[in-house]
Amino acid sequence: MDMTGERAERALWRALSAQRDGAGPPRLGAALRYAVFPGGARIRPRLTIAVATALGDPEPRLTDAAAAAIELIHSASLVHDDLPCFDDADLRRGRQTLHKAFDEPTAVLTGDALIVMASQVLARARSAHPARVLEMIATLADASGYPAGIAAGQAWESEKNVAVGVYHRAKTASLFEAACELGALSAGAEPDAVAAWRLVGEHLGRAYQVADDLADATSSASELGKDVGRDHANRRPNTFDRLGVAGSVERIERLLLAAADAIPACAAREAMRRWLLDTSLGVFKLREAPTLEAEEQSRFG
Amino acid sequence: MDMTGERAERALWRALSAQRDGAGPPRLGAALRYAVFPGGARIRPRLTIAVATALGDPEPRLTDAAAAAIELIHSASLVHDDLPCFDDADLRRGRQTLHKAFDEPTAVLTGDALIVMASQVLARARSAHPARVLEMIATLADASGYPAGIAAGQAWESEKNVAVGVYHRAKTASLFEAACELGALSAGAEPDAVAAWRLVGEHLGRAYQVADDLADATSSASELGKDVGRDHANRRPNTFDRLGVAGSVERIERLLLAAADAIPACAAREAMRRWLLDTSLGVFKLREAPTLEAEEQSRFG
Repeated sequence: MDMTGERAERALWRALSAQRDGAGPPRLGAALRYAVFPGGARIRPRLTIAVATALGDPEPRLTDAAAAAIELIHSASLVHDDLPCFDDADLRRGRQTLHKAFDEPTAVLTGDALIVMASQVLARARSAHPARVLEMIATLADASGYPAGIAAGQAWESEKNVAVGVYHRAKTASLFEAACELGALSAGAEPDAVAAWRLVGEHLGRAYQVADDLADATSSASELGKDVGRDHANRRPNTFDRLGVAGSVERIERLLLAAADAIPACAAREAMRRWLLDTSLGVFKLREAPTLEAEEQSRFG
Repeated sequence: MDMTGERAERALWRALSAQRDGAGPPRLGAALRYAVFPGGARIRPRLTIAVATALGDPEPRLTDAAAAAIELIHSASLVHDDLPCFDDADLRRGRQTLHKAFDEPTAVLTGDALIVMASQVLARARSAHPARVLEMIATLADASGYPAGIAAGQAWESEKNVAVGVYHRAKTASLFEAACELGALSAGAEPDAVAAWRLVGEHLGRAYQVADDLADATSSASELGKDVGRDHANRRPNTFDRLGVAGSVERIERLLLAAADAIPACAAREAMRRWLLDTSLGVFKLREAPTLEAEEQSRFG
């Protein structure tokens, strides 16, 4: 049975509970919880947990801290991206965006505090390998900031000349890469293996970006629980305008298989492969996708 | 001769240069430099360097990383606090605020990227003591986020019921405390000594808050290089409304002497004491303050 979702949820609860000493400004405290709970698919922290588990997960508390940190950064980026000066979104995860439910100052500070909390959670994780934890903090920071993390990805939207690959890698793939790297680092993987796992995250992140563009163009707000049509309205470079529905589905499946194929040799490789495909197809709601099923059967049937 | 200012400046250049790989969005890259250079008094990173120096500074590169990290967090808070949804300020350090010179999205992302960079700089610092570096990252995070860091301090401004001491400690003193703690930690100080140095930062931070409130109420924008009168206009709890000019000056001097007196025993205690008083009085432009001079003479004359 797949426990990654429950474990990610528990790790996030622990991370936020550690902050609640009763002395903070109550409104910001409530906003931090609103930003993180209830969550979306939690795919990034689940990925961290799955990778660490595939490698034996010798330091589960460190893995939990990494999973929480990844999702805190993701949550921060959603809160800031929804702000009036960016997407000016009304709806997120089926309810009001944070700046609508609270106010704009609280939304800015919530994002800031969540970014801070991510490094805090990792820095305070009990580990027998402090140098490894430092590498994890640096890896997550690389995926979050400038020049190639998600803040940089969001900033590419303000640039006139944008290579869509660079933009999407920074905005989306970087955090999927970090999710895999952090899982591998927590398990004590060597640099070569960490780099190999990073590649899994890169393919998967690209698949998620295509799926996100597809959903933005073809789903309703009530289906997704967030505002739709923003990419097109804001004339952002996006894969859907180029690929259409069928092309997008095919691209997603191809990238998913590339991610699965990139999983490095390890005892649990086949289980990890199935987890990755099943979980991603579930999140994409593409479980019935005929192309992929056929290709999978020709490999494993 | 006091080299803390030059050293802080060099440490910040190194930190920002490490990020410039040419692959990032150029506008955000320019905004990051705009947010950090030219700086203000750099009092926080200079404090980190001074404390480490007073303790022998065995890992100068780690001290530099800590000094840079402290100032990056401070710079991030200035950029976000100047935003339209907070102070809506036009002027900072004698020129346009970042969101005026660039735009609001870039200002939000600049703050985010600077917060990320602070943990990045520390996590990548070469040190023989990784556990110590983790403690430094956690200490800086505590001073930056929720429940008692500067983000929490800023959030107190949205609350109806605010204890001014709690608000000022989070908004201003927390980063002065961290500046001292990081200097002591870099030098390998034991927890008791780190806590003692924290107290120096707390007194000093409180002195800076009173001086800031005084300047906001009594100086012109051209003198300060930033918008003035915001505390009063926004009805923020501030010390000036209660203390007036003479009372504020007396309070500043008393807190400065408390900070100086709190310096723990160490070989360079007297030099550190002079540095702290001279530097602070210079920054406050209170060098001629008669009360303090008289008190100092009665002690050292």
